[in-house]
Amino acid sequence: MFRSHTCGELRIGNVNQQTTLAGWVQTVRKFGSITFVDLRDRYGITQLLFGENLQAQLDANPLGREFVLQATGTVTERSNKNKNIPTGEVEITVTSFKILNKSEVPPFKIEDDTDGGDDLRMKYRFLDLRRNAVKKNLELRYAVGRSTRNYLHENNFMDIETPFLIKSTPEGARDFVVPSRMNPGQFYALPQSPQTFKQLLMVSGYDRYYQIVKCFRDEDLRADRQPEFTQIDCEMAFVEQEDILQMFESLVKRIFKDVKGIDYSEVVERMTWEEAMWQYGNDKPDIRFGMKLNNLKFPSHTFTTKQDISSIIAGEFAVFNEAETVIAIAVPNCSEYTRKQTDELVEWVKRPQIGMKGLAFIKCNTDGTFKSSIDKFYTEEQLKNIATTCNAVAGDLILILAGTEEKTRKATSDLRMEMGKRLGLRKDDDFKLLWVLDFPLFEYAEEDNRWVARHHPFTSPKPSDTDTMINNNPRIENAAEYLKHPYANIKANAYDMVLNGNEIGGGSIRIFQKELQQKMFEALGMDTEEQQHKFGFLLGAFEYGAPPHGGLAFGFDRLCAILGGSESIRDFIAFPKNNSGRDVMIDAPSTIDDKQFDELQIKLNLK
Amino acid sequence: MFRSHTCGELRIGNVNQQTTLAGWVQTVRKFGSITFVDLRDRYGITQLLFGENLQAQLDANPLGREFVLQATGTVTERSNKNKNIPTGEVEITVTSFKILNKSEVPPFKIEDDTDGGDDLRMKYRFLDLRRNAVKKNLELRYAVGRSTRNYLHENNFMDIETPFLIKSTPEGARDFVVPSRMNPGQFYALPQSPQTFKQLLMVSGYDRYYQIVKCFRDEDLRADRQPEFTQIDCEMAFVEQEDILQMFESLVKRIFKDVKGIDYSEVVERMTWEEAMWQYGNDKPDIRFGMKLNNLKFPSHTFTTKQDISSIIAGEFAVFNEAETVIAIAVPNCSEYTRKQTDELVEWVKRPQIGMKGLAFIKCNTDGTFKSSIDKFYTEEQLKNIATTCNAVAGDLILILAGTEEKTRKATSDLRMEMGKRLGLRKDDDFKLLWVLDFPLFEYAEEDNRWVARHHPFTSPKPSDTDTMINNNPRIENAAEYLKHPYANIKANAYDMVLNGNEIGGGSIRIFQKELQQKMFEALGMDTEEQQHKFGFLLGAFEYGAPPHGGLAFGFDRLCAILGGSESIRDFIAFPKNNSGRDVMIDAPSTIDDKQFDELQIKLNLK
Repeated sequence: MFRSHTCGELRIGNVNQQTTLAGWVQTVRKFGSITFVDLRDRYGITQLLFGENLQAQLDANPLGREFVLQATGTVTERSNKNKNIPTGEVEITVTSFKILNKSEVPPFKIEDDTDGGDDLRMKYRFLDLRRNAVKKNLELRYAVGRSTRNYLHENNFMDIETPFLIKSTPEGARDFVVPSRMNPGQFYALPQSPQTFKQLLMVSGYDRYYQIVKCFRDEDLRADRQPEFTQIDCEMAFVEQEDILQMFESLVKRIFKDVKGIDYSEVVERMTWEEAMWQYGNDKPDIRFGMKLNNLKFPSHTFTTKQDISSIIAGEFAVFNEAETVIAIAVPNCSEYTRKQTDELVEWVKRPQIGMKGLAFIKCNTDGTFKSSIDKFYTEEQLKNIATTCNAVAGDLILILAGTEEKTRKATSDLRMEMGKRLGLRKDDDFKLLWVLDFPLFEYAEEDNRWVARHHPFTSPKPSDTDTMINNNPRIENAAEYLKHPYANIKANAYDMVLNGNEIGGGSIRIFQKELQQKMFEALGMDTEEQQHKFGFLLGAFEYGAPPHGGLAFGFDRLCAILGGSESIRDFIAFPKNNSGRDVMIDAPSTIDDKQFDELQIKLNLK
Repeated sequence: MFRSHTCGELRIGNVNQQTTLAGWVQTVRKFGSITFVDLRDRYGITQLLFGENLQAQLDANPLGREFVLQATGTVTERSNKNKNIPTGEVEITVTSFKILNKSEVPPFKIEDDTDGGDDLRMKYRFLDLRRNAVKKNLELRYAVGRSTRNYLHENNFMDIETPFLIKSTPEGARDFVVPSRMNPGQFYALPQSPQTFKQLLMVSGYDRYYQIVKCFRDEDLRADRQPEFTQIDCEMAFVEQEDILQMFESLVKRIFKDVKGIDYSEVVERMTWEEAMWQYGNDKPDIRFGMKLNNLKFPSHTFTTKQDISSIIAGEFAVFNEAETVIAIAVPNCSEYTRKQTDELVEWVKRPQIGMKGLAFIKCNTDGTFKSSIDKFYTEEQLKNIATTCNAVAGDLILILAGTEEKTRKATSDLRMEMGKRLGLRKDDDFKLLWVLDFPLFEYAEEDNRWVARHHPFTSPKPSDTDTMINNNPRIENAAEYLKHPYANIKANAYDMVLNGNEIGGGSIRIFQKELQQKMFEALGMDTEEQQHKFGFLLGAFEYGAPPHGGLAFGFDRLCAILGGSESIRDFIAFPKNNSGRDVMIDAPSTIDDKQFDELQIKLNLK
C-alpha cells in the first residue's frame, strides 16, 4: 500500500499519529519558507505542510497541479481551521515525500466550476472524471444500482445474464449488427433490450428476473440519447398489472430512501393515457405543478367521452373557428406581463421546435377586469366565461393555442412546461411519481397502411379487449377510416412510470398465448414465414406451458440523471459518446485492418 | 397475483389454510376417482389432490405434463408423507382449478436425469432451464455474483460501467467488430475486456473499481470457450502486488463461505511460475494432490537454478539418452498394475492430444523389488536409485516420459492429472487455492522475430527489472539466440489465481509511466504511429498524473462452474452458444436485410 490513510479520513482525533497519504496535488501555496499542498483523492482533500527542512528538496523537485504525490508525516492540529471540509481541522506535517508521477498542466481546471468546454472535457474525459461534480454523479449511479439490487434481491428476484450476440429482428429501432467470422454472410445483432430472453426465462419458470444491462440502438442521436444505454430490466410471472405497479413503485421509493434520504410516503398517482393527454397534452406529464390544459375545442373523434364546450369560444375569431383544437392554460400571477413579455411568449411558440403561428392571451387583472389579445372578437363577458372555464383567478394569465389537434396539444404541453420552469414550479429536489396507464395498443402507420405496436409486439391487450383482437381481421380496408377499425380502440395492458415529466420506466403484461401473439404479428404485417424466421423460438416456447407474465424496464441513465437533478444522461455515464456516436477520447469508431475485412468476408460499399 | 403461496413454502403449520398455487404440472397420477398432481414452480413441488367432485371437470380438461395450472384449495396433512421434499407433509385438497396455458408434450423429460441429448436441450433451452439441475447452476451463479458485490462494496469498490462500443486494437485475440452507420467505413469493436478503461478510471482517481461485465473474443471455440463470457473485473490504485493478493484471496474465501458454506481458513499457497512448471509441468497446477514431477533430465538453458541429476539415468537406453527432457511421476498404490493396464497407459500417452511416443515405468513392488519396462537398460540398483530420487515408496508405480522439453513437460502434467482423476484425488468438493507468481513478462514470437506480452501489454515488469527493460533495445538481432536477450529474463509483476487446476483469475500491477509503456509497445513491434493510433488515449492519460495501480479479472463463468463441481462453463450460462458460435434456439447469427447492408454501407465478400 502506498498509503496508510485516505485523504478524506483524518480528523482531530488522529492528531500526533504518523500517516502516509497518496493522491493528486490540487493546489500548491508557498509562504516564505513553508509550502502548503492540498492533496486530493477520491475520499477528500487533506492539507500538507512542508516545513523549511523540505524546501531544498521541493525546489529540486517542484510540485505541479495533478502531480501524484506520496507524503509521510504527522497529523497536526491546524491553527487556521477550514470548517468547509471534514478534514479541515488537521494538516499533515510532512517528514518525507515522493513524487509518484508527474503531470502536464491539465487543459482545464479540475474544479467544480471548470473552465473547460464540453468538447475539451469529452476528449480528456479521464481528467473530467476527476472533478467532484462528475464523481458525485457516478457515486449516485452506483448507489442507485446498489439500492436496486438490494431491493430486488429481498423480493426474490434473480439476476440472470442474457446474451449480447443475438439475432437481428428490426422491429422498432435499428439494430447494431456484428458480422460472424465463423458463419460467413451471417450477422449477430446487439440487443435493443433483453425482451424476448426475459420472456423465455418466465417460460422457464424463473418467475422473478432482473438485470442491470446494456442495450443498444442505432438511432440518430438527439441530445439526450446514447447508442448504448443501461436498463434496469425486470420480469415477473403469475402477476397482473396491479402486482407490477406495487412492486416497482416500492422499488423507486426504496431508491429515494437509500440514495436521497427521502421518505416518499405519498400514494403514487395514477392516470390513464387519455387523461394525461387531455389534462397535460403529454403522456409523461410533470405533475409537480397544475396549470392543466383546458380543452376549449377538440375534434369529435378524439376524447369521445368528453363534453364539447366549444360554444364558449363561438364568435368572429377566424383562427379559433378554423382550428381543429383550441387549448388554454391559466398561468398564475402573470396577469401583469408587459407587452414585451407577451410578445416574447408569442415568439417562443413560433420557434421551429414549437411551430405554432401565434398565441392568444387573456389577462385576468387583479381588479376583476380582463385584457386580451383577442378583445375585438370577444366581449368581456365571453372572456370572463372562458376564464371561469379555465378555473382562472384574478392575477392569472391565460395562454391560448389553436391549430391542428396533435400539434396544438403538444405545443400547449411544451408551453405549460416552459411556464412551469419560468415560474420555478419544477424544482430539482421535488419528486413526483406517476403511473400512466391504459395506452392504446396500436398506432396506425400511414405509409404502410398497417398497425404498429405502440409499446412493442409482446404487449398484451386489456383482457376485455382480447376477444376484439382475436375475432377481427387486422387488415385496414380503407386507410382513411382506420379510426373506425375495432383495433383503434384496443387498450394495452401497459404502464409507464413518470418522474417529474420524464418517462423513467415502462412495461406491460405480455402476451403469453401463441394464437394471440400470432395475431399481433399479423396485425403488424408479418406473414407466417416472417413470424417464424424472426420469432419462431418465442412462438415455439409458447407451445410448452408459458405462464402469464409481465414486467418493465427502467432507463437507468435517465433515472440517475433525474435523481441527480440533471437533464442530461451524459453527465451520469463514465464514458459517453457524442451526438455522432463517437467516443472522442479513444477516437472510436475507427478503421479496421484488411485482415479483419478478409476474415469477416465483408467489404465496404461506401456511397 | 395468480397465487397466494409458492409451490415451495407450505408446511404442516399451514394445515387448514386456504391457498392458491400456480405452476407447472410435473406429474399426473390417477387412482380411481381421485387424481394427484405434482405442481412445480421455481421454489419447489406441492402435491395437489383432486377429489371425485372435480373428475368430470378434469375429464373435460385433461391435464398434461408442463401444463400451467392454477389451483385453489385447502392445505391438508398427507397420510402418506414424503420425507424427501420440504412440502412433503402436506397436500392441497383442490376446490377449483384453472388451466392457464396448455403444453405440447415436451421433447425430453424435465427431470434431473433427462433423456434429452445436448443438441435437443440446446434447441429447447427454455425447457432445459426448467430442470432442477440447471436451475441450481443459475442460482449458484447469482449467489456468487451477489457475494462478490457485497464483499467489494464493503471494501469501498465502486461498480462503474465501461463502454461496449469501443475501438478495435487487436493485440491478443480477435475482436468482434460493429459497423458504424453514422460513421461510414468505420467500426466499433466489442471489448475483449475493459482493461484500458479501468486503467483510465485509476488515472481519474476512482481508486477501487469493479464490474461484473460481458467480454467478447472472436476465437475458434474449444469445448469450454464462449464468444461472449463474463468477467469479475477489478482494479485498485496505490497498491502493490501484496495488497491485491490479499484483497482478492479474501474475496474468494468470502464466496466459499457465502455460497458453499466453506470456511477456507488455510493460508492460500503461493508458487512462482518457475516452480509450478518445475514441480507440476503446468502454470495452473492442481495442488489437491502431490505426485509431483521428478525432473530426471532437462535442458541446461531452462531452470538454471536447478541441479542436473541426469547421471542417475545414464546408461544404454537410447530414448533417454537422446531426449532433451526426462520426467517421472510416482503414482501411489499402482505397482500391481497388470500388463493390460500399463499397455493402456502407453496407448493413452500416444493419443494425438498427448502425442508421446511411449511411456516407461518402474513398479516399486511391495516386496522391495523393482520391475520395469526398461529392465534391460538399467540395473536394479539404478532403478532403486531412480525410485529414491522420485521419493517413491513400495507400492508406487513410476511413470517416465521422455522427449523434447515443452512437449514432455506438458505430457507429464497431463498424465499426472489423468492419474489423479483415476485415483479419485481430484474431488469436486475439495477446494485448493493457489497464487502463481513471477511469470516471464515476454514470450518470443518466432514467426515475427519480436516479443509478445505473455499477459498483456499493460503489465509491468518487476520493479527490479524495470531498468533492464528501459535500458536495453528490445530488438532481437539473432533470432536463434533470443534467450540470450536480457528481455528473456524479465519477470512480470503478474499473478494468476488457480483453483483445483483451473486458472480462475489473473492480473498484474500495471505500467503507469508513459516511457515504460512506450518501451513495451516498442518491444511488441509497434512503431510510434501505431502506438498513437491504437493507444494514444492511454499514453496521453499517463501524462496527467497516473497513479501506481493494478488489478485482476476473474473468469466468472469458470469460477461458477468449478464451485458447482462441473468442468463445463456452458452449464452455468443461461443461454450459451455452441462450438460454432451459434445460438441454436434463436437461430443466430442469421442473414440481415438489404436495407441494413445499404445503411451500413458494407457488402458481403464471400470466398
